[in-house]
Amino acid sequence: MMFDLKTYMQQKRQLVDRALNDALPAESISPTGLHEAMRYSVFSGGKRLRPILCLAAAEAIDPECQGAIEPAVAIELLHSYTLIHDDLPCMDDDDTRRGKPTNHIVFGEANAVLAGDALQALAFGVIAGASPAQPYEVRQLLDELATAAGSRGVVGGQVEDMACAPEDLTPEKIEFIHRHKTAELFRAAVRMGAMVAGASTSDLSDLTEFATRIGMVFQLVDDILDGGEEGGDERSCLRIFGVDGAKRRAEEMTQEAHDALARLRGNTMPLEALARQMAVRSH
Amino acid sequence: MMFDLKTYMQQKRQLVDRALNDALPAESISPTGLHEAMRYSVFSGGKRLRPILCLAAAEAIDPECQGAIEPAVAIELLHSYTLIHDDLPCMDDDDTRRGKPTNHIVFGEANAVLAGDALQALAFGVIAGASPAQPYEVRQLLDELATAAGSRGVVGGQVEDMACAPEDLTPEKIEFIHRHKTAELFRAAVRMGAMVAGASTSDLSDLTEFATRIGMVFQLVDDILDGGEEGGDERSCLRIFGVDGAKRRAEEMTQEAHDALARLRGNTMPLEALARQMAVRSH
Repeated sequence: MMFDLKTYMQQKRQLVDRALNDALPAESISPTGLHEAMRYSVFSGGKRLRPILCLAAAEAIDPECQGAIEPAVAIELLHSYTLIHDDLPCMDDDDTRRGKPTNHIVFGEANAVLAGDALQALAFGVIAGASPAQPYEVRQLLDELATAAGSRGVVGGQVEDMACAPEDLTPEKIEFIHRHKTAELFRAAVRMGAMVAGASTSDLSDLTEFATRIGMVFQLVDDILDGGEEGGDERSCLRIFGVDGAKRRAEEMTQEAHDALARLRGNTMPLEALARQMAVRSH
Repeated sequence: MMFDLKTYMQQKRQLVDRALNDALPAESISPTGLHEAMRYSVFSGGKRLRPILCLAAAEAIDPECQGAIEPAVAIELLHSYTLIHDDLPCMDDDDTRRGKPTNHIVFGEANAVLAGDALQALAFGVIAGASPAQPYEVRQLLDELATAAGSRGVVGGQVEDMACAPEDLTPEKIEFIHRHKTAELFRAAVRMGAMVAGASTSDLSDLTEFATRIGMVFQLVDDILDGGEEGGDERSCLRIFGVDGAKRRAEEMTQEAHDALARLRGNTMPLEALARQMAVRSH
């Protein structure tokens, strides 16, 4: 039977978008400009890949699980905040993202910093409403999210990315940056979904390996696609691995991700399809 | 019996500083520059007022309570992050704080944004280690901290403060800004301490009133002291209330804070002394 990933993603995306809309204060609530800025970036055409992974991981453990929407929303709010701060003039200084003006271009730099700050706080606040299955607790979801968000997670990855001169790039540094900037959020998304569904220790460990691998693949494919268009970022991994080397790494890691999934007993079809799609995507 | 506030504060400060040191990754841990920047601002001579209020609130409910150190640390990490971001060139553009160069002057703007981001994540992460007494749960501490940190808490206050032109200041706007920028963190500090100690609903409500009042007093006294030195910030409340009016408001609110405390049965001596000190402080 062919799994219809497109329909699956559309349905989950709608679910996530509705929950994000419920979680974010309305633009009519004071401070209105801040809430407008927060909503602008959250609803700017993201594919909702991380929250969908969270929901799919929960379903792989327990097909009836309905409780993964809070961590799914939290991870997308956190992701949105990191994009706003990454785009700031003092960081990557990007004027557009997904074809739209970035947050600081529309709302000014101060408001962009503050919108990001408030989105991070909201991400954690949403976790307070989650209902993890036994033997997990809210404190474990919180720990998961805080680790992924912190100085040894996405923030650490961004620091290293900015600090690393192109000529100093090594395979180890690239792996560090990819792992922290990208794989950490994939990992937290999948693990929180699995925890909410009551995953066993062994299932959680397989899903963790799956998530880390596809996170790395995601970033490798990003660099390959960038490189194909315009010679690429000078900090791209292509400088180290070359296009063929990067493709080979991505294939190996995709295989390892599938091997990890194969050890799970639940319905892993959505996760498999998501991983396959990530490896072959063209934009 | 005279309560020795100075010794009390010294002892608590040491306790808080040790716990902050334990919570923050060592400077030797990668990314080393980020951890250095985080530590620089956390250990830059703060009085630890908010964490001490948290500990004192817990003691007022249960003199034996040892569990308030996690929320105390969390609130100080959160406070430190807001100071780093408030000082940024795109915000208040301050070069010094407490007589030292601000974070972005020492580490650069990008690292200051990221150090603040990582401190916020760490504040939430520390809450995962808390052990609230019945009937409270980690999720309630988390909700408390997220609300205080979010778009309707400190971030909302900073947005309104920056958006409000001096000529548009009204008593209501000043109250909004003071309440959100300052009182929200006092409130969360005191409420989390009380929750960890197992406060009754009625005690929690009295302590909430106490905390909100002294938070407002703290900000009023700040403006009075600023105004005395150099004519003051043009967004100071003195423009609306005048020095005498601001002093009168601070006195009224201090009285209301003491009235709220008087309804509690526990040992409220430290909280009383802290409130008195805040009303009469000279720097």
